[in-house]
Amino acid sequence: MPEIIHRVGIACSPNEVYNALTTDKGLSQWWTTDTTGAGAVGSIIQFRFGGSGPDFEVAELQPDLLVRWKHSGEMPGPWIGTEVSFQLNKAGSQTFVKFAHSRWKETSDFMAHCSTKWAVFLLSLKEAIEQGEGRPYPNDVHIDHDE
Amino acid sequence: MPEIIHRVGIACSPNEVYNALTTDKGLSQWWTTDTTGAGAVGSIIQFRFGGSGPDFEVAELQPDLLVRWKHSGEMPGPWIGTEVSFQLNKAGSQTFVKFAHSRWKETSDFMAHCSTKWAVFLLSLKEAIEQGEGRPYPNDVHIDHDE
Repeated sequence: MPEIIHRVGIACSPNEVYNALTTDKGLSQWWTTDTTGAGAVGSIIQFRFGGSGPDFEVAELQPDLLVRWKHSGEMPGPWIGTEVSFQLNKAGSQTFVKFAHSRWKETSDFMAHCSTKWAVFLLSLKEAIEQGEGRPYPNDVHIDHDE
Repeated sequence: MPEIIHRVGIACSPNEVYNALTTDKGLSQWWTTDTTGAGAVGSIIQFRFGGSGPDFEVAELQPDLLVRWKHSGEMPGPWIGTEVSFQLNKAGSQTFVKFAHSRWKETSDFMAHCSTKWAVFLLSLKEAIEQGEGRPYPNDVHIDHDE
């Protein structure tokens, strides 16, 4: 099945990335400022972008190594059944984040948009940790003038 | 076969994007400043990053609609046999660029790196056209501290 993959190296410990992926405070600093519900396996995280947005269920947590979410709910439609994972791997003075948004039913313009947009948000994660300030929604980098 | 896809909307005409994808001057403003050989179908474009880098053969040109390249030469190894395409689609006041780097033999950390890096360079293309200045190599955004 089609998948989106990305990889960024962040000058920090795996634990700093893990915290940014598993807490409301951490997630709100790089994806969307309106994030609630992060927690243990089974938690439903609600990511909101101007009122609406996706829910993800925390499916697997391996501290400082792996975070895996299963999409939950009905929107956006093409995300139903998809999964998101973040694998963390320390190498020298940086931690690599290998990202995957997998199990798409088909490729599409929307999937291509999401691929670029995930890159934007992973760069926001890198900036949030390395520079103390990311670019989460609503201050995110736009890639479409209709956004 | 695995592929990388992206999509960005640029506030310009399809012709402005087409020129940025089919001329040495245009390509040097967003991917690498050291670009030579762009031209008609059959041309070999040499993209150099500090002395080394990939060659691509221009495989198909549909003015203001499509640019397709076939990888040429031996480096980087995982790119052998791959293709890159840019589909242009005008929608309102912007032109969407749908990018694909296809025919990878397998997914890998390197492919994930390239996926994120292509997003960085497509944002550079967008900035070059909309703001008059992109971030081509050697002024590109780094996503790995070993770059």
